[in-house]
This record gives sequence, structure tokens and C-alpha cells, in this order.
Amino acid sequence: MSRFVSVETSDVRFPTSLMLDGSDAMNPDPDYSAAYVVIRTDDPRDEARDLAGHGFVFTIGRGNDVQCAALDALRDHLLGREVEPLLADLGAAWRLLVHDSQLRWLGPEKGVIHMAIGAVLNALWDLKAKRAGLPLWQLLARMSPREIVDCVDFRYLSDALTPDEALELLEAAAPGRAEREAALLRTGYPAYTTTPGWLGYDDAKLVRLAKEAVADGFSQIKLKVGGDLADDKRRLRLAREAVGPDIAIAVDANQRWDVPAAIAWMRELAAVDPAIAWIEEPTSPDDVLGHAAIARALDPLPVATGEHMMNRVMAKQFLQADALQVLQIDATRVAGVNENLAMLLLAAKFGVRVCPHAGGVGLCEAVQHLSMFDYVALSGTTDRRAIEYVDHLHEHFVTPTVVRDGHYVAPIAPGAGTQMLPESVVAYTVARIEA
Amino acid sequence: MSRFVSVETSDVRFPTSLMLDGSDAMNPDPDYSAAYVVIRTDDPRDEARDLAGHGFVFTIGRGNDVQCAALDALRDHLLGREVEPLLADLGAAWRLLVHDSQLRWLGPEKGVIHMAIGAVLNALWDLKAKRAGLPLWQLLARMSPREIVDCVDFRYLSDALTPDEALELLEAAAPGRAEREAALLRTGYPAYTTTPGWLGYDDAKLVRLAKEAVADGFSQIKLKVGGDLADDKRRLRLAREAVGPDIAIAVDANQRWDVPAAIAWMRELAAVDPAIAWIEEPTSPDDVLGHAAIARALDPLPVATGEHMMNRVMAKQFLQADALQVLQIDATRVAGVNENLAMLLLAAKFGVRVCPHAGGVGLCEAVQHLSMFDYVALSGTTDRRAIEYVDHLHEHFVTPTVVRDGHYVAPIAPGAGTQMLPESVVAYTVARIEA
Repeated sequence: MSRFVSVETSDVRFPTSLMLDGSDAMNPDPDYSAAYVVIRTDDPRDEARDLAGHGFVFTIGRGNDVQCAALDALRDHLLGREVEPLLADLGAAWRLLVHDSQLRWLGPEKGVIHMAIGAVLNALWDLKAKRAGLPLWQLLARMSPREIVDCVDFRYLSDALTPDEALELLEAAAPGRAEREAALLRTGYPAYTTTPGWLGYDDAKLVRLAKEAVADGFSQIKLKVGGDLADDKRRLRLAREAVGPDIAIAVDANQRWDVPAAIAWMRELAAVDPAIAWIEEPTSPDDVLGHAAIARALDPLPVATGEHMMNRVMAKQFLQADALQVLQIDATRVAGVNENLAMLLLAAKFGVRVCPHAGGVGLCEAVQHLSMFDYVALSGTTDRRAIEYVDHLHEHFVTPTVVRDGHYVAPIAPGAGTQMLPESVVAYTVARIEA
Repeated sequence: MSRFVSVETSDVRFPTSLMLDGSDAMNPDPDYSAAYVVIRTDDPRDEARDLAGHGFVFTIGRGNDVQCAALDALRDHLLGREVEPLLADLGAAWRLLVHDSQLRWLGPEKGVIHMAIGAVLNALWDLKAKRAGLPLWQLLARMSPREIVDCVDFRYLSDALTPDEALELLEAAAPGRAEREAALLRTGYPAYTTTPGWLGYDDAKLVRLAKEAVADGFSQIKLKVGGDLADDKRRLRLAREAVGPDIAIAVDANQRWDVPAAIAWMRELAAVDPAIAWIEEPTSPDDVLGHAAIARALDPLPVATGEHMMNRVMAKQFLQADALQVLQIDATRVAGVNENLAMLLLAAKFGVRVCPHAGGVGLCEAVQHLSMFDYVALSGTTDRRAIEYVDHLHEHFVTPTVVRDGHYVAPIAPGAGTQMLPESVVAYTVARIEA
């Protein structure tokens, strides 16, 4: 029996605002950052292999220290606790952290404290996967339907999804698991790229990167919109000319509009290019009814959202209200793998496709495991699904994402993909950036 | 011209869990706490009068340090900034803090960072009111409709409420302001009490406190429910016997149920006492559609919620969906006076009554100003409205709430009511509690 002996946090920030990487209509100057947590045990085998659980919350700069403070506030729940019972029952780990009534008051189940819980849960999943010698997606895809269901908190979901219904969905997908696992290892999971479309890039850079995306095998690119309508129209035309008729173009407003403005603006853009793949984050991520109104008005143009969807209760409502047609889960916005399993189960129940949000720092590395699990053991399909890809900052991770021919290569290294290189953590801790 | 020179934070916690004050179905052992902020200027007149802006986030214990870290993260926005222009345009102060795109990522507009912004904004309102020599409610009630509208951020609201509509609502209420101000000073604002109903109290204490509440002039009491159905039925019967047929009894589940369970449980309680005043927080505070379903199923029993309503976008949706019939604004859950003005305007637009959440630490002191403003300058009525009252911890405030004959006495001391006694802050800082 081993025990948790340390929960170390680091305030890691990359000065991305200097290059306008990641610039959009709401976030002009992000410094991609990670509130990073490393959880260690006293197990001599873990120590011998330098094996620990790694997790993080992605932020865009200021406030990363607040996220670290929230991670620190969770430390007492782990220190001295026995490792094996907790890793064997990560549903219990969720309850330990999410159901702490005093900490829950800070959300409840949203924002800084909820994201910190997510990072700790993800670190525990990372440790569990490493001890099992499996990449997270494979660990998940080889768990029994009952074990998966036991990781999910169905509180507030039962009017839309019960544990029995979730079990049925997973059991129905069980037969083809081995085949799909082999297919995934062979061909990977479809990706799309946002690299060409940042608002801070000039037209020449947009066109060059859009053409590169096609040459690299991506079947979809994405443009940031919402700053200026004339600019958006011009950029959309340029992108369409650059990629040709067969590549999908999605657009992303990053919450820039009110409901009436979203409808009006998107009607203008749809007139320029009727084949827009989706409109992403047209308005507040909290506005279920607003998204539903936008989706009805713009039908059949799909509405996509999720990178700022704070918890499973919002996912439930967006699906109940037909307020989104593409669910964009994020690896570090909600309370970890557990809550993303809930969101994948909800999407499967409602028959909605999942195209995860990624980019930032380490989001590609982390979220790919969830889509791959979903393909092997739940939805059973990659049809019209793709994981976002941005080619930033992968070099700081021990097992960086590999994208080849427009597909995420299925990782085979054990763990959740969330471990940063120790030298990167040291080099980009906040004290150095601010100096 | 003066400048802001300090933003001090204190982690203040009261060991209320020792007495089971505040115990409910979700929060068995709260330690009522305040992440407290004091904002000072270099104006010699402020210094001579020891005049500062005071604000706080109410929490229930663990995590109060995370709230303090979030307050600290806002410090750089104020230090060195000119005081007078900011106090003259608190709508600009909102934008300065809420529209910081890097900090916004931590919510957006919800949870720890949003509540911290609320505390800082409330402290600025406190300072503004003190400098004007007016209690906050009177300061607000004497501002012009245009000045009030300029304090509100209508982003994400315009499909339900435009600035012009808000202006019309305020202008329509302008004629009777002076009369209602006089009436308020004469008779106060109705209160109801939660003191008898905590789950941790035994039957004898419940009955004794319920009878005291009637003797003290309250026309409504509230019971916590959701722990055990048989207990709830017994306690409801005992309370009804104790208060008689003419006193209203509300019940509060503190988010304990899923939607189907809320409907089933409340049908049982409504059979015991068909006159229940409202069911409060039946399920997740994020579940607009769930509350709407509960309200439809239990109609005409009103559904009340709001103490955990994270922002104006949620308020908009609850009103659009007829998901609540009583809006319970909270002084420290959202981004300060500004966002509560938005919520009061939304409630006025939809014709829904507002009965604020209070209790905790200082929530009564703070929120009374908002209802009093609403009565004088917006809704123009106190009909079937009441502010929650709990007789805890008032002794720690410089201008404690006074409730007489079941009414909040309108405060006449300048400020927002948010200033704690310095000796209380010193005595209950966290280091002492933990020792």
C-alpha cells in the first residue's frame, strides 16, 4: 500500500502574445499558460521509474496564479491518502473533490475551483494509466461499461441520462472494440487545423497557412471572425480561394456577439460562403436558449460550442434544447476525464457529434485520448468528427501529439499525455517570464 | 485628483460549524467566511476620516484563501489609477475588470474570479457612497435613469432587454421616488427569517424559534428540506402548528435533487401543507430547463432560486423560460452592484418579484441596499417581496442590519454596509481559527 506524498504546483506561462498566436475577437493577446500539478506517491516502484501523475489547467496568462492557489487548496485531500483504493475507484476521487461542500460553494461546479479539480483528476488518471502501462485512451477503452459508468456522477443528469441508459450505450458499442482499436492504431483520428485563422495574422500569412494546411492533409480549417464584418468577408473569400471547394471552413466568433447580432452577422457570412462547416461560440457559452435561437435561425448551418462549457449540467441542456449540433469538449475546462465521460455519454445519447477543442498548451495532447476512447468504446464512429489541432508548444511535452496526413496518430506511450518536460517547466515558470 | 494606493485582502473565517448554524442538505458544516478587501486612496480627506472602500466574497470555509488570491489578482488594475474618474463611471470600472480577457478565461464571468470582481466593485460602490455621504440604496435611488443604465453591461442581454427598455423602466418609476423613499425610511422593507429552519436543529429548537419568529413580527419563515422525506414532513407539520395558518412557510432544498426527484418530493410536501410559499433551489442552479420543468409540474407552487446564480446571462434565461417565479439575488455571487442592477432590471422587465438571499456573513448588510433601491426607483413595490434575514454575525459590522417588526430598517449611514469592525477582522483571520 502506497500513499500520496506530494502535490506540487507550478505557474507556467509562455509569452505567446508577442507573436499574436491565439489572437481572436475576444482574446487579443493571450499568453498561453498552464497551472501545472504533479502528484507523487511513496511507492518505491513509482520513485524508481520517476513515475507521477501530471495534470494542468490551461489559462491565457493573468490569473494562472489563482488557478495554482486553487490546486493548492486541494492538496489536503490527497496527502497521506492511500493510492491504490483511489486509483481503483476514480468515481470516488471525483466525489472526494467535487462534493467537498465548502469548496463547492466557490462554483458550484464551475470556474476556477472546478477546473483545478479537473487538473487533479486528470493527474490521477495519468498516474493510473502509467501504472497500467497504457495510453489513457486504451485504458478507458478496455474498462468495462460498468467501470466507466461508475466514474460518472449522474447527479443533475437523470432527467436526460440515467446510469442504466449509459450502461446500455456502452454495452451496445462493446462488440466492435477490438476492431476499432486496431483501425485507430492504423489510421489515427481525423484532425482539423486552426493555425491559419488567427485574427492577428495578415492576409498573406492566412493564405500561405491555409494552403499549407491543405498540403498537410487537413480536410478542414477554421477562421476566427467577429472583429470586423468586412474583414471577415474578405478573409473568408481568401481562405476559400486558397483551399478550394473540397476543404471545409469553420468560423469561430469566440463569444463576440449577442443573439441578434450573431444571426445577422452569420447570415452575411453564409451569403459569402454557403458551405461554412459551423459557427463556433457565437455568443455567451452560458446561453443555452440563445444558442438554440441562433441554431434555429441559421439552420442548417451547425452551431458549435463547448470549449467554455463549464460542466455536464450545461452540456445536458444544450443537448436537450438542440442548441448545438457540434459539441466541443475541452480537456481542462470541466472536472477532468470523469466529467468529459459524462459529456461524451450525453452526446451519444442525443446523437450529436463531438469535435473537441484543442490548441493552447497541451490541450491536443490531453483531449485526443477522449475522442479515441469515444470512437473505440462509445460512439463507434469518426464520421464528420475531427479534433482541433494547432501546432503550438507541443515541444514542451514528454509525449507530444503527432499529426500526420491530417490525422492524430494514436499515442502508444503510457499516460494521459499531460506530462511536460521538466526543463520547460523550469524555463517558463512565471518568475522568469515577468523578469 | 487622488489615486488608489492599497488593495488589502484578509481571509476571515468564523467557526460556525461548531453550532450547526447554517446547516442544510448540501452544506452540513459551513464555516461562514469572508474574503475581505479594503481599497484605500491617497486623498488626505479620505485618510483623515479613515474612509475606504470595503467589499467581500462570502464563502463557507475552505477555499476562502483561493478567493483572496483572486482578489489579489485584481490589485494591479487599481493601484496608481485615478480615483475620481473611476468612481464617476462605475460602468467603466466593470469593463476594466470583467473585460480583462486573460482573467475572463478563468470564468468566463462566473465562479471565483467573477465573485472577486464583484467584491472589488462593491468596495468601489461603498467608497463612492461614503464620499457622497449617502447609504448605497439612497445613492442609487438618486442617480438618474441614464446613470443607472450606464452602470450595466448589456452584452448577452439584448435579446431580452435593451438599454432603451431599461431606461424606460427606470423613467416610468421616476415620478414616485421621493414618496417611496419617505415610506421606506418610515416603515422599512419586509423581511423573512430562516433562523428556525436549519437542518441541524432539533424539533424543540425548530418549534421554539418558529414561535419566536412570529412574535418578532415576521410574516414568513423558511425550512431547510431535502435530507429525509419523513423528517421534512414532520418538521413542516411542526412548523405549521407553531406559526399558525397566517404565516407563510417557504422550503429550501439547497440543490439536493435531480429534476424528477424534486417534483416527486415536493408533491409529498405540498400534500402535507398546500400553502408552501416557495420551493427554493430544488436542483442545480445551472439548470434552467430543469427548473422550468419543475415549475411546470408543481404549478402554482412558485420556484425560487438565485443565491448561486452565477451571472446575468443565467438570470436572463431563467426569466425567458419561466423557470423561476421568485428571483433571489445575492450581493456577493455576481460581479457586484452593477450586475445586480442588470438582474433587477431583467426581473422588472419580466414582472418577476425579487426576494434576495441573505444570511451568511454580511449578506443582509449588503443586499438590503439593492432591494431598497429597487423599491424606490425601479419596481416601486414591496408586494409579496421580502429580504431573507438570519440573525448571525451582524455584530462584526460597523453598520449592522437592524430588523424591527419583521422589517429591515432603512440604513442611513453612508456606504454599502460592507465594512467589518477592524477588531473582528483581526480576531477571525484564518491563522487564528486554524490554531
